[in-house]
Amino acid sequence: MKEENNPAFSYRPIGIIHSPYQDPAGMPIQPQGARGVQGRVEIYEEYRPGLSDLEGFSRIFLIYSFHRSAGYGLVVIPFLDARPRGVFSTRAPRRPNAIGLSIVRLERVKDGELVIADVDILDGTPLFDIKPYVPAFDAYPDERSGWLSGCDEKVAEARSDRRFLDKTLDS
Amino acid sequence: MKEENNPAFSYRPIGIIHSPYQDPAGMPIQPQGARGVQGRVEIYEEYRPGLSDLEGFSRIFLIYSFHRSAGYGLVVIPFLDARPRGVFSTRAPRRPNAIGLSIVRLERVKDGELVIADVDILDGTPLFDIKPYVPAFDAYPDERSGWLSGCDEKVAEARSDRRFLDKTLDS
Repeated sequence: MKEENNPAFSYRPIGIIHSPYQDPAGMPIQPQGARGVQGRVEIYEEYRPGLSDLEGFSRIFLIYSFHRSAGYGLVVIPFLDARPRGVFSTRAPRRPNAIGLSIVRLERVKDGELVIADVDILDGTPLFDIKPYVPAFDAYPDERSGWLSGCDEKVAEARSDRRFLDKTLDS
Repeated sequence: MKEENNPAFSYRPIGIIHSPYQDPAGMPIQPQGARGVQGRVEIYEEYRPGLSDLEGFSRIFLIYSFHRSAGYGLVVIPFLDARPRGVFSTRAPRRPNAIGLSIVRLERVKDGELVIADVDILDGTPLFDIKPYVPAFDAYPDERSGWLSGCDEKVAEARSDRRFLDKTLDS
């Protein structure tokens, strides 16, 4: 589709995610691989009134920019597999729209800062949105996991490497 | 924060979501209220190679623009409650970044089109990203639901009204 027929949408961060991960290589690739790892989210002052009532939820969705991801591949070799897969069937960061989604544990909210755990997110990540995780809406334990079936144990051990940082690896 | 210190990120849709809902008022407010309601997602041709392997997943995340939402409120009266709540503790569409997230059922993928069900999304919605829903990563049945505790039954019946369309209702 021609770009003039497909206008872009712009989003400005509401805060910044801080974590122990300074380098996109060597990170856990899902919250399962990051159990207990703490981080914090600094919400910019003007948005802080929107945090009321959030502390009642023990898990939240964070929607953010994969800001260190460069370019994208439509077919990628994901961290958990040796075969190329369509990017939309993966959680790989080099996506047409480099938007990340993590379901982290919310420990507390204080003075515009969220203390979070199970953090698989890079330090300095720009945050766009927070939504409460509601088991009645969001927990579907019995769905099919496609090529990821049976990866449950591997995911806790798996760590990222440089593949989604190097533009020459896929395209 | 001054805008010049907080640069915007731009995203261009990868496709369009089609559903039976033409009007933002009167819609189900979560997939629970939309059981069986079918829709389809038309993926633009250039992104279609990224759909390989997706059909193995029975549920997917759709990340999209709340394109009919105007402005935002930091404190809102949500559809499921009578009290004002911080917007980040709600799924209300009028958010600082009007980004929507739905977990829909994937019925099939064919010729660049996804047939989906449990659709709580407005017709013509611009889609940014698709991610596979993986129970091992994403299903947390035992989390606390804050002010939404006990709303499980109400949500299936609840329908939207015009409150998030009318800029004068909250701010």
